[in-house]
Amino acid sequence: MAGKSPEEEHPIKAYGWAAHDTSGVLSPFKFSRRATLEDDVRLKVLYCGICHTDLHFLKNEWGFTTYPIVPGHEIVGIVTEVGKKVTKVKVGDKVGVGGIIGSCRSCDRCSADLEQFCPKQVLAFSMPYFDGTITYGGFSNEMVCNEHFVLRFPENLPLDAGAPLLCAGITVYSTMKLYGIAKPGKHIGVNGLGGLGHMAVKFAKAWGAKVTVISTSESKKDEAINRLGADAFLLSSNQEEMQAATDTMDGIIDCVPFKHSLMQLLGLLKFEGKLCVVGGVAEPLEIYCGPLLTARKMIAGNDLGGLKETQEMIDFAAEHNITADIEVISIDDVNEAMERLEKGDVRYRFVIDIANTLKAP
Amino acid sequence: MAGKSPEEEHPIKAYGWAAHDTSGVLSPFKFSRRATLEDDVRLKVLYCGICHTDLHFLKNEWGFTTYPIVPGHEIVGIVTEVGKKVTKVKVGDKVGVGGIIGSCRSCDRCSADLEQFCPKQVLAFSMPYFDGTITYGGFSNEMVCNEHFVLRFPENLPLDAGAPLLCAGITVYSTMKLYGIAKPGKHIGVNGLGGLGHMAVKFAKAWGAKVTVISTSESKKDEAINRLGADAFLLSSNQEEMQAATDTMDGIIDCVPFKHSLMQLLGLLKFEGKLCVVGGVAEPLEIYCGPLLTARKMIAGNDLGGLKETQEMIDFAAEHNITADIEVISIDDVNEAMERLEKGDVRYRFVIDIANTLKAP
Repeated sequence: MAGKSPEEEHPIKAYGWAAHDTSGVLSPFKFSRRATLEDDVRLKVLYCGICHTDLHFLKNEWGFTTYPIVPGHEIVGIVTEVGKKVTKVKVGDKVGVGGIIGSCRSCDRCSADLEQFCPKQVLAFSMPYFDGTITYGGFSNEMVCNEHFVLRFPENLPLDAGAPLLCAGITVYSTMKLYGIAKPGKHIGVNGLGGLGHMAVKFAKAWGAKVTVISTSESKKDEAINRLGADAFLLSSNQEEMQAATDTMDGIIDCVPFKHSLMQLLGLLKFEGKLCVVGGVAEPLEIYCGPLLTARKMIAGNDLGGLKETQEMIDFAAEHNITADIEVISIDDVNEAMERLEKGDVRYRFVIDIANTLKAP
Repeated sequence: MAGKSPEEEHPIKAYGWAAHDTSGVLSPFKFSRRATLEDDVRLKVLYCGICHTDLHFLKNEWGFTTYPIVPGHEIVGIVTEVGKKVTKVKVGDKVGVGGIIGSCRSCDRCSADLEQFCPKQVLAFSMPYFDGTITYGGFSNEMVCNEHFVLRFPENLPLDAGAPLLCAGITVYSTMKLYGIAKPGKHIGVNGLGGLGHMAVKFAKAWGAKVTVISTSESKKDEAINRLGADAFLLSSNQEEMQAATDTMDGIIDCVPFKHSLMQLLGLLKFEGKLCVVGGVAEPLEIYCGPLLTARKMIAGNDLGGLKETQEMIDFAAEHNITADIEVISIDDVNEAMERLEKGDVRYRFVIDIANTLKAP
């Protein structure tokens, strides 16, 4: 397939929006998808969420973007075709595809349902797939994906507000479960009330935990408590409030994606409390050993969840009516949305209405 | 007892060496010990190890030293008197007293045999005891201690080389057990081959783990491998060696007490590997979130062990002939030893021969 243009390398014609350089500016783009293989699911994309990781990739902030890039990894739609060996879904089903669309399926981590840590994992965009072609994400009309990486969406779960479960949702769900704080009676701190944070509040409340939102922005207080149901709110710049909350939390899920104080958060944790970092801060952060030694506090992290756990999370979300609070946008407004996302100006997740706004170029 | 001099406040006359200001210079000092209460053990101190914490306290580096300070918290000796309710030991027994000589005995942590984390814990020196008097450590001829905080030394365990088990030994033993790496087949990295590190190598080998010593000093290689029995050695400044060891270790016990790179250590860990910090670095250390997110690596710490675990460790050490490699010194050389300790010039622990060199002032 080498040498063929993105439009010609596969038989299924597709279109979306792509960025062609580190400006990250998106514009209409024609490409193609592979023919549906025997274990593939083809879907008509209806909605796609926008995650901060899309922004990092668009601007090549992590250094391994392949241009042109079609971002999007919170992809939901309707199955339009299935390969003959597919058993998981059928034509007409509501499905989702998240950040991971391929893995080796045989290593220790794949065997442990941790495909997101497989050394051969393939991301939904900007990475070579096993056939050698570059993957394109969900800012597009068509998607073809091996059925293992397709998630079933229960009937009652809305596709638009459900799309962010596929990255924001699973990241906080998996992390709070992993570090043992997803339990009734636990006191969970949620640092940063954005796409991830607001989902963390909803899951934590569904588990019966006590939830305290920690934020740099006083304006989030009302929403945290009155709209999202958090039990308490701490303004991180208010030393008095923070001091009064010292040693009170079993764990903190730290969703802030820019430089901030880990020490301040460690101070809020109880003995043996866990600081669970998921924000993916690019800058170095400073720690002092004191709280690790004198109170066995720990700093850990996590990334997404495996496919099995992602399905479990979706089913749990459907059962408890947990979806994201979203702002639905037209694909025509995607560049503006990216600028607003960069400034944190979204409550709490942008979701692109692909089906109704993406036109063939 | 307020207003009484250290020499007059208790009935048992005692003497040792104390520092009187932040110079940390030690000199002969007369003080007193309380009369042996019904649950107290009195001992004649034979040896006392020197730990970096003694140095921190001598110079008030942590800001809460009370002068005059008699340091020393790796105290071993022979029981000379027991209170009428004492059942743990009898006169003539070999015993040890470590860093913790008092705790509330009723809180959650005390109930969980974690006296070292009791909010009311009393350290062996420079802290107010429950009777209001200041505690004095093991650089002295006499010690009186509640029996709960006294450790039994099995007959075959030498007192001089066994003394460092009481702080260096329990710190590394407890930490490796706590974080699940104290097992056959685990690959344990030991960062820093000093008082703590060399004990970590010995315990790790006794558990059947594979041990790699990481050091800034090439001169430690021969000792690590040929004398202490480590399986491998990494010079931390050798990028090639370090690179080749990427993703190979289940856990690292980080014993370095001064500023160093945690990121370099995190790189050596496998998926879900644990960086266990015990060195008590005073300066801030820098971390990047990447390895926490993409490989679930974690940074944690620990401090000493509870009394039950300390006894278990001593019994294990006796069974496996594990003692510290020591340099026995006269109390007259203690100030020089402190200077050498500050420069890391000791292999691997100074132990003061109290009984034979400490004279009454």
